[in-house]
Amino acid sequence: MSTKPLAIIAGAGTGTGLSIARRFAQAYNVIILSRSSASIDPIVSAVEASGGAAYGIPTDVSSEASVKAAFKDIRTKYPGSPIAAAVFNAGSLNRAPFLEAKLEDWDRTLGTQARGAFLFSQATIPLLLASKDLQHPPTLIFTGATASVKASVNFSVFAAGKWATRALSQSLAKEFGPQGVHVSHAIIDGVIDVPKTEEYTFDAEDAKISPDAIADAYWHLHTQPRTAFTWELDIRPYVERW
Amino acid sequence: MSTKPLAIIAGAGTGTGLSIARRFAQAYNVIILSRSSASIDPIVSAVEASGGAAYGIPTDVSSEASVKAAFKDIRTKYPGSPIAAAVFNAGSLNRAPFLEAKLEDWDRTLGTQARGAFLFSQATIPLLLASKDLQHPPTLIFTGATASVKASVNFSVFAAGKWATRALSQSLAKEFGPQGVHVSHAIIDGVIDVPKTEEYTFDAEDAKISPDAIADAYWHLHTQPRTAFTWELDIRPYVERW
Amino acid sequence: MSTKPLAIIAGAGTGTGLSIARRFAQAYNVIILSRSSASIDPIVSAVEASGGAAYGIPTDVSSEASVKAAFKDIRTKYPGSPIAAAVFNAGSLNRAPFLEAKLEDWDRTLGTQARGAFLFSQATIPLLLASKDLQHPPTLIFTGATASVKASVNFSVFAAGKWATRALSQSLAKEFGPQGVHVSHAIIDGVIDVPKTEEYTFDAEDAKISPDAIADAYWHLHTQPRTAFTWELDIRPYVERW
Amino acid sequence: MSTKPLAIIAGAGTGTGLSIARRFAQAYNVIILSRSSASIDPIVSAVEASGGAAYGIPTDVSSEASVKAAFKDIRTKYPGSPIAAAVFNAGSLNRAPFLEAKLEDWDRTLGTQARGAFLFSQATIPLLLASKDLQHPPTLIFTGATASVKASVNFSVFAAGKWATRALSQSLAKEFGPQGVHVSHAIIDGVIDVPKTEEYTFDAEDAKISPDAIADAYWHLHTQPRTAFTWELDIRPYVERW
Repeated sequence: MSTKPLAIIAGAGTGTGLSIARRFAQAYNVIILSRSSASIDPIVSAVEASGGAAYGIPTDVSSEASVKAAFKDIRTKYPGSPIAAAVFNAGSLNRAPFLEAKLEDWDRTLGTQARGAFLFSQATIPLLLASKDLQHPPTLIFTGATASVKASVNFSVFAAGKWATRALSQSLAKEFGPQGVHVSHAIIDGVIDVPKTEEYTFDAEDAKISPDAIADAYWHLHTQPRTAFTWELDIRPYVERW
Repeated sequence: MSTKPLAIIAGAGTGTGLSIARRFAQAYNVIILSRSSASIDPIVSAVEASGGAAYGIPTDVSSEASVKAAFKDIRTKYPGSPIAAAVFNAGSLNRAPFLEAKLEDWDRTLGTQARGAFLFSQATIPLLLASKDLQHPPTLIFTGATASVKASVNFSVFAAGKWATRALSQSLAKEFGPQGVHVSHAIIDGVIDVPKTEEYTFDAEDAKISPDAIADAYWHLHTQPRTAFTWELDIRPYVERW
Repeated sequence: MSTKPLAIIAGAGTGTGLSIARRFAQAYNVIILSRSSASIDPIVSAVEASGGAAYGIPTDVSSEASVKAAFKDIRTKYPGSPIAAAVFNAGSLNRAPFLEAKLEDWDRTLGTQARGAFLFSQATIPLLLASKDLQHPPTLIFTGATASVKASVNFSVFAAGKWATRALSQSLAKEFGPQGVHVSHAIIDGVIDVPKTEEYTFDAEDAKISPDAIADAYWHLHTQPRTAFTWELDIRPYVERW
Repeated sequence: MSTKPLAIIAGAGTGTGLSIARRFAQAYNVIILSRSSASIDPIVSAVEASGGAAYGIPTDVSSEASVKAAFKDIRTKYPGSPIAAAVFNAGSLNRAPFLEAKLEDWDRTLGTQARGAFLFSQATIPLLLASKDLQHPPTLIFTGATASVKASVNFSVFAAGKWATRALSQSLAKEFGPQGVHVSHAIIDGVIDVPKTEEYTFDAEDAKISPDAIADAYWHLHTQPRTAFTWELDIRPYVERW
């Protein structure tokens, strides 16, 4: 039985999730909650290749039953391990003229982002509150996007989900900060340099956000002492127009 | 068959809805979408008492079928009438420590506010776009709250729904403004002076927002020409601390 | 001696000032504070042509002595008249790459906008507080711009002045609202349709903001009862991208 | 002649400045610009005690001549040294009911904060742009406060200066980011644990912000690669109400 602290990462299907997993695995056992084994396996391999330990659980974060099952699995596999960090990184991009959006787009997009963030927070906050003897304050980080603060044309549904999650994170920061849990929200404003954005090309070098740099920022947030909690920061490439 | 333009008001169970209905009934036939006949009847009576015409349709704005049925009813009763204004005033207050909130609270709160706002927008925007020969630009107004811009402790769920709706309204303003539809969002920051807030008392006079004053502000928004659209304004009593 | 209430408008050199003057002159005697007689005279004529009364005082709002002299002049000419409204509409556009901006640009731009707003507020608030028997709450309105909420490239100096003025207006709204003075800030986000913007042309009709529509919005703000004060609203043409 | 990079810190009279100096002195020669030798000497001693090197120049940041002299002094003392980081930490608190504020309070407060930030930026940005072969992107950080985003009662003047500086920082971030200079703004929202706040006491432990934690955050900002620049973050104690 390991009592090394855990870091739980939801929505680790993208390169960002992988970088976060690898970064937090330098200190913790990492749990990956992602929709499919296909997205989990490469992350587990990458974490192990860099000397860490990761355990993946296929999870639909928008489903209460699926989230409950995942956390039961975590408790079984790591009984007694404190939870040092939880990262909600799940997303479901939706981009469409408003009148072409369907109710099922709304339900799926807000299901993953907003409802999923709610379910993940309900599952992790009690564990973060109960975790003792950690080196850094227990931390819950939400990954936001440009659409978390700006609702542009064609992003009506996506922005609704992202703003809901940002609101949730702010309320949780205010409620659980005084109890020692650090809740943060990161606005990732730009294209992330991951395999699925390969087709986006820019004239300037380094015009896509390095997912490792995001992971470093998250790690910095995690290491902040309770006298100096950051709720929100933005991250964008130097050439981004905003 | 009347071709007097229509104003459609969703969520007219409160005093605000009644004031808005009465104000817009000075120029338009008013349609009231509200959960129950019990909330509709007093509004219809009040509108008629002040010389206007109102027609109520019991509607669950969070239900696609119910919204579709309501708009079919409107088309049958008022064939050919242009839609001059639509007001989304529905809400479902939720106030609780985060760990006491249930998933059903989340679903109900975001169902009414956020999903309901989506369904209402999908139903009204095509009608607003198609309306011709109106005196003022066709207008869609969303009623927001303090929690639309601030996510305080105990308001995690409520704020999530309100921020989602505000995001929706901003994206719609940007998308449909150029097509001549005026989309607005009003942040109502304070206690409204309606029967159900009777128990809230203040030392100062006039410390609650007059619902008639809200209705006047909505009417002003509606009368703005397309050269000068306001997306957002805040409304609060002079003694409110913010 | 007239005891008709006064509306004092600072920075009335533009078409907006003229429209505001004409609108408020329907109810009040209007005082115009502007840098030169050349900018005052056409406004006085326009107000008189529409049946109102206006009195202009050449004033440098960034100068304490000039502002004091102007208010002494007002008191002499209109002894005992209450002040119903004051509008700070002065501005000094500055647009330049940061390293080309000179300290004198900074001083002039912040002098007019920010320091001028301070001096104008210090002069008008005591008068607004002392005004009795008005039909509407005494009102102080500041004209903002896109740069009041967004600091874009080439607008470093201009935005600094505009953000400073917006901060001032928010603090004043919070301090003097409870004493019955309505303080507002309007974000004018777009090109205003005035003589000096003639060279800006757009494909769409009505793509510039009508100054009369701005004046109508200011009048609406002024007529809000104290139970429902708006601090801030934005105004932009329907085709504006934001 | 040392070509070790320099970090220039303006406004180092408080404990925050000392912590920032000590942190950046781990990598750079530190220059302290502060009003008086009395505030400079303890910082130089503290930096030297922890093994770094600091050089202080008494400077009035609100004076063009004083700032120019300081930078001439820097060039003379450290010819050829690249500038790795510049931190604008100067402030001049003003707290008073609006009608008790004097014009000289306005001029002094905005002189230090806003005009000083302008002068410091004009002096440092050309040097940051010209600096080569640095390990991290050249960085310009502004220290903000609660009043940078909220203009409360009694903070009209202080907030005006802080909002102006925040605007400046945003415009500079947008203009110079694409040229490789990282411009950031930190909202310090709470009481900092420095000698002059000793009289503020709280029931909770760790209720004041550790200046060393602020310095760590600034150092993290400085080390961000250009693919992932943060413009703004907030820092507050876990028990702070916001």
